[in-house]
Amino acid sequence: MKIDGTAYRTIWLNADGQGVDILDQTRFPHAFEVITLRDLDAAATAIRDMWVRGAPLIGATAAYGMALALRADASDTALAAAHERLLATRPTAINLRWALERCRARLAPLSPRDRPGAAYRLAAEICDEDVAINAAIGEAGLALIREMSARKGGAPVNILTHCNAGWLATVDWGTATAPIYKAHDAGIPVHVWVDETRPRNQGAFLTAWELGRHGVPHHVVVDNAGGHLMQHGKVDMVIVGTDRTTARGDVCNKIGTYLKALAAADNGVPFYVALPSPTIDFTVEDGLAGIPIEERSGREVTHIAGRGPDGVAVDVQLTPDGSDGFNPAFDVTPARLVTGLITERGLCPATAEGIAGLFPERGARSA
Amino acid sequence: MKIDGTAYRTIWLNADGQGVDILDQTRFPHAFEVITLRDLDAAATAIRDMWVRGAPLIGATAAYGMALALRADASDTALAAAHERLLATRPTAINLRWALERCRARLAPLSPRDRPGAAYRLAAEICDEDVAINAAIGEAGLALIREMSARKGGAPVNILTHCNAGWLATVDWGTATAPIYKAHDAGIPVHVWVDETRPRNQGAFLTAWELGRHGVPHHVVVDNAGGHLMQHGKVDMVIVGTDRTTARGDVCNKIGTYLKALAAADNGVPFYVALPSPTIDFTVEDGLAGIPIEERSGREVTHIAGRGPDGVAVDVQLTPDGSDGFNPAFDVTPARLVTGLITERGLCPATAEGIAGLFPERGARSA
Repeated sequence: MKIDGTAYRTIWLNADGQGVDILDQTRFPHAFEVITLRDLDAAATAIRDMWVRGAPLIGATAAYGMALALRADASDTALAAAHERLLATRPTAINLRWALERCRARLAPLSPRDRPGAAYRLAAEICDEDVAINAAIGEAGLALIREMSARKGGAPVNILTHCNAGWLATVDWGTATAPIYKAHDAGIPVHVWVDETRPRNQGAFLTAWELGRHGVPHHVVVDNAGGHLMQHGKVDMVIVGTDRTTARGDVCNKIGTYLKALAAADNGVPFYVALPSPTIDFTVEDGLAGIPIEERSGREVTHIAGRGPDGVAVDVQLTPDGSDGFNPAFDVTPARLVTGLITERGLCPATAEGIAGLFPERGARSA
Repeated sequence: MKIDGTAYRTIWLNADGQGVDILDQTRFPHAFEVITLRDLDAAATAIRDMWVRGAPLIGATAAYGMALALRADASDTALAAAHERLLATRPTAINLRWALERCRARLAPLSPRDRPGAAYRLAAEICDEDVAINAAIGEAGLALIREMSARKGGAPVNILTHCNAGWLATVDWGTATAPIYKAHDAGIPVHVWVDETRPRNQGAFLTAWELGRHGVPHHVVVDNAGGHLMQHGKVDMVIVGTDRTTARGDVCNKIGTYLKALAAADNGVPFYVALPSPTIDFTVEDGLAGIPIEERSGREVTHIAGRGPDGVAVDVQLTPDGSDGFNPAFDVTPARLVTGLITERGLCPATAEGIAGLFPERGARSA
């Protein structure tokens, strides 16, 4: 994606060949700043405090975090400690585990001397793969939007999305946004309803920013509005991302996704989930029973950051003193509410058969 | 309700016998200030700018607004102008129309000399009736909570509510909150999940404040969280208010109510709507087709007010420059998703038969 004419990924090797550059997404949309991560500590903090977020970008950052750790100490002990440290930063993120397992499998057999170089190469490889995967997801989703556009006689296709499964959540393109960018670039008129996505407002802060920079028409709506929009024919399809999808197609995604899926089903609106296949967890069938949901600080509910009248970001309190917040960060949308999964290998139904059909080599692995 | 030991209604005649005192609810929960309305202009502004909100309190304020108008000019022309002016302040509020029709019917036949006194008396009458209605709703809902408490062996009954159908939305007691206050006062353990209710955050700003002052255990949650809570058995019942209910039981309420009703239905959680019968609109059957939904300024989506670090209320921008908000203020929950209506005459199913059975004299009127 380009910002003001300059092509950016969301994570890249610093010009010194050692540090890792990221965008500090907590300061979006009001400030745009590049931060250089120089050690394991910084990488773990970047993931835990959500300077970076989004399943694929978390995985890529973890891989670079491993490289930074091994640059300082490439012993077996340090490798195990870095693995444990990074895995603990975001317990729900399946990509994090996947990236770290891949690092361990590749690096553990090497001599300590060879590990740092190999770790940097692997991190770069993981980044390039993510870009290729998201571009392929974009092509698969583009076909759906193109078909809807034809059905509407060329009138703008209205797409609702939740949270930020965008460029900023990946290394490039985004997952849920990839089809949107592909359609926009292909000259198909699209308009996006951006759920603000409380409590952390990734929709208002990030998705709106991305879409705006790329020139995609959009409106920000409160998370409460989607059902009403669907009741009145103002949503042609929903496309969301996912942090983790089970072997039978249950979808764990940002809190509130389930409510939009219910509304889509009630109004006959197609509900698609865009996902890179590494986020499929073949070890879990039942998402409701099998996926632990992260509970984050209630302060994310009781306070919110915005840009004050003086242009400076400020944290304001929304609740009266003495009223606490409760803050589950994700929910699970049962597969029965999902119209289809958009993957790098194309579309499939959100069923065990559909997923296994598209990824037979991974389904077999879990059997 | 009492605040810090002092009994308050939300609207009352000033000690001078002419002005009308209200609480400025736009400054909640961080400031508590009484404003005296002295003319029609002030009353219309109070309704339009939501210094007062909630269907019953809007009706009461309109009635007092009529009294203030007629105190200045009690001519036929002034009566008609005041009616029109007040009616235009909030097009969706059925109570507003009801209160104003009642004022016109009572006052128009009188001589101009007698109108001001009669208007003040009628406004006081409307207020007293609202208090009696809400107390009765409270008793009817209390029975449901008592039954749930018994079924749970005395464990706290978890009730989710949306927006503020509370004391602050009425003259006293509230509608959706009346059963909660009655249960709490009767020693039945209750815990309330308070939807923050974006974009205007009436849940976080008002409901949490009320419940806290009364000592009712509660947590504030983002509007996205309710579905997840229901999936995990953490909600025993939903009780919401309504701005307008149709003759067959479709419920128009704050945007997002429909999403909670869908989640309740999907999880077998009872979904109750507490309503004073004046909010039933017997002229409309199909709420989706027949109730115009107010679209408010997109700025309510893109900006939010909170208490800054220095303790002063501040308006912060949540979206990037160039991203607009879209802001439908209400949605319609189809009757099929409503378990029951809690009225001042008791419980009834959300059906044409159920409503007509409880209010036969009003059903007859529309035939």
